[in-house]
Amino acid sequence: MILDKVNNPDDLKKLSLDEMNYLADEIRELIIKKVNVTGGHMGPNLGIIEATIAMHYVFNSPVDKLVFDVSHQCYPHKILTGRKEGFTDPDKYLKYTGYTAPEESEHDIFKVGHTSTAASLATGLAKARDLKGQKYNVVAVVGDGSLSGGEALEGLDNAAALGSNIIIVINDNDMSIAENHGGIYKNLKLLRDTKGQAECNLFKAMGFDYLYVDEGNNIGKMIEALQKVKDTSQPAILHIKTIKGHGLAVAEENKEVFHWVIPGILDKKTSQEQVNAAEDYTSVTKDFIMKKIKEDKTTIVVNAATPGVFGFDSEFRKNLGVHYTDVGIAEEHAVAYSSALAKAGAKPILTIMSSFVQRTYDQLSQDLCLNKSPLVILVYWGGISDADATHLCSFDMSMMSNIPNLTYLCPVNKEEYLAMLEYAYSQNEGPVVIRVPSCKFETCGYEDKTDYSIPDKFKVVEEGEKIALLGLGNFFNLAKEVKNEIQSKLSINATLINPKFISGIDKELLEKLKSNHQVVVTLEDGILDGGFGEKIARFYGNSDVKVLNYGALKEFTDRISIDKLYERYRLKKELILQDIESLLK
Amino acid sequence: MILDKVNNPDDLKKLSLDEMNYLADEIRELIIKKVNVTGGHMGPNLGIIEATIAMHYVFNSPVDKLVFDVSHQCYPHKILTGRKEGFTDPDKYLKYTGYTAPEESEHDIFKVGHTSTAASLATGLAKARDLKGQKYNVVAVVGDGSLSGGEALEGLDNAAALGSNIIIVINDNDMSIAENHGGIYKNLKLLRDTKGQAECNLFKAMGFDYLYVDEGNNIGKMIEALQKVKDTSQPAILHIKTIKGHGLAVAEENKEVFHWVIPGILDKKTSQEQVNAAEDYTSVTKDFIMKKIKEDKTTIVVNAATPGVFGFDSEFRKNLGVHYTDVGIAEEHAVAYSSALAKAGAKPILTIMSSFVQRTYDQLSQDLCLNKSPLVILVYWGGISDADATHLCSFDMSMMSNIPNLTYLCPVNKEEYLAMLEYAYSQNEGPVVIRVPSCKFETCGYEDKTDYSIPDKFKVVEEGEKIALLGLGNFFNLAKEVKNEIQSKLSINATLINPKFISGIDKELLEKLKSNHQVVVTLEDGILDGGFGEKIARFYGNSDVKVLNYGALKEFTDRISIDKLYERYRLKKELILQDIESLLK
Repeated sequence: MILDKVNNPDDLKKLSLDEMNYLADEIRELIIKKVNVTGGHMGPNLGIIEATIAMHYVFNSPVDKLVFDVSHQCYPHKILTGRKEGFTDPDKYLKYTGYTAPEESEHDIFKVGHTSTAASLATGLAKARDLKGQKYNVVAVVGDGSLSGGEALEGLDNAAALGSNIIIVINDNDMSIAENHGGIYKNLKLLRDTKGQAECNLFKAMGFDYLYVDEGNNIGKMIEALQKVKDTSQPAILHIKTIKGHGLAVAEENKEVFHWVIPGILDKKTSQEQVNAAEDYTSVTKDFIMKKIKEDKTTIVVNAATPGVFGFDSEFRKNLGVHYTDVGIAEEHAVAYSSALAKAGAKPILTIMSSFVQRTYDQLSQDLCLNKSPLVILVYWGGISDADATHLCSFDMSMMSNIPNLTYLCPVNKEEYLAMLEYAYSQNEGPVVIRVPSCKFETCGYEDKTDYSIPDKFKVVEEGEKIALLGLGNFFNLAKEVKNEIQSKLSINATLINPKFISGIDKELLEKLKSNHQVVVTLEDGILDGGFGEKIARFYGNSDVKVLNYGALKEFTDRISIDKLYERYRLKKELILQDIESLLK
Repeated sequence: MILDKVNNPDDLKKLSLDEMNYLADEIRELIIKKVNVTGGHMGPNLGIIEATIAMHYVFNSPVDKLVFDVSHQCYPHKILTGRKEGFTDPDKYLKYTGYTAPEESEHDIFKVGHTSTAASLATGLAKARDLKGQKYNVVAVVGDGSLSGGEALEGLDNAAALGSNIIIVINDNDMSIAENHGGIYKNLKLLRDTKGQAECNLFKAMGFDYLYVDEGNNIGKMIEALQKVKDTSQPAILHIKTIKGHGLAVAEENKEVFHWVIPGILDKKTSQEQVNAAEDYTSVTKDFIMKKIKEDKTTIVVNAATPGVFGFDSEFRKNLGVHYTDVGIAEEHAVAYSSALAKAGAKPILTIMSSFVQRTYDQLSQDLCLNKSPLVILVYWGGISDADATHLCSFDMSMMSNIPNLTYLCPVNKEEYLAMLEYAYSQNEGPVVIRVPSCKFETCGYEDKTDYSIPDKFKVVEEGEKIALLGLGNFFNLAKEVKNEIQSKLSINATLINPKFISGIDKELLEKLKSNHQVVVTLEDGILDGGFGEKIARFYGNSDVKVLNYGALKEFTDRISIDKLYERYRLKKELILQDIESLLK
């Protein structure tokens, strides 16, 4: 294998073009094999192999700095920068994260997993270089729809004004995670169609030098183009056309499905989209949406470029028709746009993943909550997870529940979820956010008739004494387990409460508990800092009631198993029991 | 006066062009007179009088929807839509807020005060209209540098793809709040210079129809242009050139100073910039910066278009030279850019106003804290205030202090501030944020030699017993007052603590307090929810120590006097004493 000879970018520089082409094939084979086992970003990485080889051939990393946007596209880069064992050795498949990570290699400048950051970060690197009087190339690699994100556009605006070396490679495969949306992508298409010759050029308009490469999957052509922009003294855009999933027919044909794949994708007869057929929170949500569209033509679903997270496959999106807006990677706009839709009397439902909702704090606060627009927001995947540090989903409750005028609900089963959805959808008072359960799907079998317009009303599921357990959302079942443990070990009939509301507390109930409860325990599937439990602790601060808060610590965890995290956070019935016991003594 | 006949936009439609020109003069005079008394946005409003008259003449508000970005520019609109008394009657000068406010008038669609939202919001309105099968014009008015904000660009991207009526008026006066920065503004200049004829056109590139008006302060020309785009079936940009401060010579000549003016500006011999000459936190910061630049040429100050907030007048900025980046209204980029500067070994200091730091949650979390870049951030104006609901500064602590890896410091006097600045600047561990005091400037007279690299170390200022008072930042003095009150009324020598750290708690000290303290009181100048005090309450949850938390409630307040708010939040020594007394009984 050629790859045997390539341990770092310097080795690459000794290869002939032919050898580099072979190397591309080898890398392609490795990525396909590995990602088929572990899951991961298949299409984006297959599309950028040639460009990555060319970049490492032309530039001198780590002296020259390569910044990968969102780093969906960094597998070839990892293979070429000393981490090929993560792809050649199945025992080391999980050794490296799927994103750039400085702790792994000096060739990775930033830890990145959210999109649209590369132009901004690269501009900072370039400015630091200028201040230091150094000379090297700063290269940002932007792709997969990241261009429409506000931070990317802000970054381009400032990069254009830098007045010195910065090279922004726009890896244009005509796709975001799903298809692209928005005026910017129309311009990219025009530029592709005219092989970069169209007068109407977004990048030139902003003041960049501009070069177009029609064959971004051709190493020779890429080397030629990169050599032209290397050492430029002006901000330059290198717009390259590549093919997402290049070299794997099924991935080229099913670009969206193969953007991020589950393990074993190539061996499955069905596509990733069709894997889940049984009823779950996803299917319940989709059914609700379709029903509402039939009843009210102003119903509209909004999301920011991650339809797969919500199970919105291409067929479902087709069925939604005009009742669907994918704003592209533009979460801020998604919130403001949806707020205005609601304000104007339409019925928007915004779906968003927990890790990305944090891109919209100011829009939630100003565009939405200050204006009390009756928008429904569904937050998916919220909770402690074994995810990469860049995609944690444990911050949404702490971030959102402290914004005024926002009602954040937390159902524990299908019927509650549906009742909350119905309430959120039909009310006109203000924004209602629902944390779609990310735990096991459960159904209680009878309709939930709760009136959710009564704010912050907790539900006492079982009335007991001495100890009250508040199990929020995903952790309601853990609260039940703790209750049973208390019953069997301490012979105490503890009170079990389903708080339902994250954003406010039921003062009346909490006050009542004082009379016959010594300990109140809170359980939340998110960070404790700024979260639900602290509000309970504050409430009881001036009383004799003891409070124990359970949840995640304030930290970025990185691919740590959920079991280990639960252990670390004492989120286990036996550990919680220990703590309670020591308090009762 | 012509204005006597104009009570709503319909009345305007009966006027001749001559009468409208007289009306513009009358409105100009009113704005100058009123703003000179109350302070407010002078330049932006003087510049848009003619365009506003033309818009209300051509469009049929409130059926047609006018959405003002940031609404720095809504005074003429307010005068024309039933609120002229707020400008003609000095007794009613403060009746209306300086921003659009739906509770005041059906002609205001959104409550807006942060920038870059209009294109996003207008796109939502337009989409709702389309879903409902209605017909009307949706007009966004964008100006004052808002165009470079990520949300604006995301909004434009999606507006361009709307496929139906939306008109975005770009009010281009060649200024942001200060001068404009970035590639986008270069294109605006090119378009102005070519009277809209340049081929290189950002808006056309995005897919908009485009029309340019060279005389945006000419009512006749504006009416003509607006009539051309009215009822368009395609997304259209109307790029108008106006003069900031139009019609007031001193404002035209000093565009930045007259963007937002203090009361009595016209009667002062000095400019706003020169009003403060005595030493204060602003001057101390500026001196620190200049000293550091002399010592290290990689020192650089970054801000997002509000240099006035930090006292960075034009002379100071000139002195900073290459050691200064105003990224324009682009807070997200400002954080990412600064993070990269720090990562690359430069010495960036990012200055930002509390109300706007909330535009950067994800960048703080991902671009900065996850990467542990040693960036210094200075947050200005943090605290409970009598501000408009759109410009509150009481959320920063709750929002930021729950992000991992972020150290948030809170000094109480000049020496502490300087020691923290020095620490933040010289360390290499990670981001350090300092909340610049917004209370009275104080100096203790001796150097602070604290080692701030020891995390979360609170300072016991006076050791006492029974009651411990934790007075954070601005509220340290209130804690002192409470201590004195306790001494004199209860004869108890309470412990006085200056926590210094917002983002973490001193567990060792808190543990120690347990031995001889019954009550711990926290005081913080921001919302309680998600804030500092709740962390203390959580810590003591499992103990016998009682905790009382004082701070703001989670709410959007709107121009309520600080005294009233302190009363509402029980932030008064006598009220706090009452609460403590009832606990000790």
